[in-house]
Amino acid sequence: MSPASRIFRDPQPFRLLRGGELPGLELAYETWGELNAERSNAVLLFTGLSPGAHAASSDEDLEDGWWEYMIGPAHPIDTDRFFVICVNSLGSCKGSTGPASVNPVTGTPWRLDFPELSLEDIAASTQRVVEHLGIEQLCAVLGPSMGGMSALAWLKQNPRGARHLVTLSSAPRAEPFSIAIRALQREMITGDPAFDGGRYTDEHWPREGMRMARKLGMVSYRSAIEWQDRFGRDLQFRYPKQSFTMNFEVESYLEAAAQRFIGAFDPCCYLYLSRAMDWFDASADHDGLEDALHPVKLDSALVVGVDTDLLFPPRQQGEIARSLTRLGIDTRLEMLPSPQGHDAFLVDYGNFGNVVGGYFRSIARRELA
Amino acid sequence: MSPASRIFRDPQPFRLLRGGELPGLELAYETWGELNAERSNAVLLFTGLSPGAHAASSDEDLEDGWWEYMIGPAHPIDTDRFFVICVNSLGSCKGSTGPASVNPVTGTPWRLDFPELSLEDIAASTQRVVEHLGIEQLCAVLGPSMGGMSALAWLKQNPRGARHLVTLSSAPRAEPFSIAIRALQREMITGDPAFDGGRYTDEHWPREGMRMARKLGMVSYRSAIEWQDRFGRDLQFRYPKQSFTMNFEVESYLEAAAQRFIGAFDPCCYLYLSRAMDWFDASADHDGLEDALHPVKLDSALVVGVDTDLLFPPRQQGEIARSLTRLGIDTRLEMLPSPQGHDAFLVDYGNFGNVVGGYFRSIARRELA
Repeated sequence: MSPASRIFRDPQPFRLLRGGELPGLELAYETWGELNAERSNAVLLFTGLSPGAHAASSDEDLEDGWWEYMIGPAHPIDTDRFFVICVNSLGSCKGSTGPASVNPVTGTPWRLDFPELSLEDIAASTQRVVEHLGIEQLCAVLGPSMGGMSALAWLKQNPRGARHLVTLSSAPRAEPFSIAIRALQREMITGDPAFDGGRYTDEHWPREGMRMARKLGMVSYRSAIEWQDRFGRDLQFRYPKQSFTMNFEVESYLEAAAQRFIGAFDPCCYLYLSRAMDWFDASADHDGLEDALHPVKLDSALVVGVDTDLLFPPRQQGEIARSLTRLGIDTRLEMLPSPQGHDAFLVDYGNFGNVVGGYFRSIARRELA
Repeated sequence: MSPASRIFRDPQPFRLLRGGELPGLELAYETWGELNAERSNAVLLFTGLSPGAHAASSDEDLEDGWWEYMIGPAHPIDTDRFFVICVNSLGSCKGSTGPASVNPVTGTPWRLDFPELSLEDIAASTQRVVEHLGIEQLCAVLGPSMGGMSALAWLKQNPRGARHLVTLSSAPRAEPFSIAIRALQREMITGDPAFDGGRYTDEHWPREGMRMARKLGMVSYRSAIEWQDRFGRDLQFRYPKQSFTMNFEVESYLEAAAQRFIGAFDPCCYLYLSRAMDWFDASADHDGLEDALHPVKLDSALVVGVDTDLLFPPRQQGEIARSLTRLGIDTRLEMLPSPQGHDAFLVDYGNFGNVVGGYFRSIARRELA
């Protein structure tokens, strides 16, 4: 957890959507910029599956955050104008209550005794932080990937809670292709004997399962065209004898990324958050997304997607944008030609910074002049 | 092995591209139709990774083959006109010499002592069957997926060996995205403790590794759009308690497919063939594909691909077609809108049957009238 993080502690019990209750909540969060006197410049950022609340550096923590290029003074989301809030999701392991944290009732980590988690729970718990900060209406709610799903869940719970919405490389629901990939990743983790029904220890930890799951994640997060340009058929070494792996450069890249991930994320938290994405469907029990979002009032929305995204394909961006437009919301859909696939929002600062920066500058011009 | 299969036995030692030698070859093959008096109507079919020589049923084996809709009397490849040959690839386990067959020198299965295998070896060994059948020049050589790669390897070895070429959902070389997926599959197999360095037995068999590898294979063989139409978010059962898998219909579909694969293919053969695909690059040691194929003489070529193919993307079909065209070969490129991804050639008989059938009918009209 970053030294810049604050902990919001709520002793109230928290009931979860699918049943179960937490005896209380702790949520780690960070903020950047200042809330203005009118309390009208707050931007709430929901994260993807693995990042914590440290989205950007600040005086309190000079280390780069996971979206460093996007948030800061004179950055696309300009913290000289906006007050940005990022909360480590409920269920994650970067300072917030989740399967890796200690159940105060038993004094031991929750692990698989943690109640079933949904993105709606992440949204509802995050709103407690917003209220704690004394914000009645957000200027904007935004989120990339899973964060965009959580933002949609939050909007359904708070239909007048924000004036603007930004989703990036996200989706109104999980589709079977991404479900299949995530289910396979979860099976890699639970199938590792060291997982041991969630009773792993630091010494006996499901390294292999997490390593393989991360590799498959990387394959699904990037794109064929990026890797062709980046690695081509560069060999790791030439004509290795009877090795069935590590022949090509792309393999050692994946291995290095997977090794970095081992130990950096809790296996149970990964399982809970991954499954929460599968379960998410913004239009469940409604007649389509437009119907589900019907009560939502927004001044405008920006929907950003990437051509080469395998997990959150262009047509899902189109569905979000179309539904919002039909509800009379001034919506802009930007399909970016980034080669980096689903991960482009993290690395393609040219395209994403430009589009998001332009959007927030126009909001600032109109509302914060 | 099908009762329709014949075994070609060659006592000559067979040297492999990457070093190593086999003391002799056995290759299982099937044929359909009759070789005409001019010996001018032979069509050689190279297979994908897992199919055997039984591509279609016949009087000797009424069971459907893996490409049943494509080959037969009045079928797209009309066996009333053409003499079709399909060989179980060297290195496979469906009747041909490979890691699962017995090394005649030691009397035990080769397993990981089998020499390193390349698609060039598959091409060269297959040519021995063609020669054995007394065919000097093929009417056409064709192959889907890995089979198209083997066909290109064969053409480089036999630049005047065929008058026509058909590649379907194939590629001139493995790219890092498909390499990454196949390397991950191989790691699943070799990482299964039951694999035991290739010393698995019927009782102690790498079921888990093969099961997971097949699931990942299925994910990469199909497409997001097909599964969205087919499964959507249909639940396997509703609100299962604390299960991290088998929540959605798509998961049970994958599980069933994976279970069928277990025991149906030898793990070592899978590893060797999968790696051979990664190693394949038709333009290796050449200045591009056009240069590599420069000696090739063909009357015409058909290159077929599918929009939604993740493993053998449209741009790779384009590269094959463009290179052949630049060599002055009358080449037709067909990009089909099949939703079934890489596997479309197996199941989309409408699109594939139509294009391949039209091509072979025009050859028959011109050459076999």
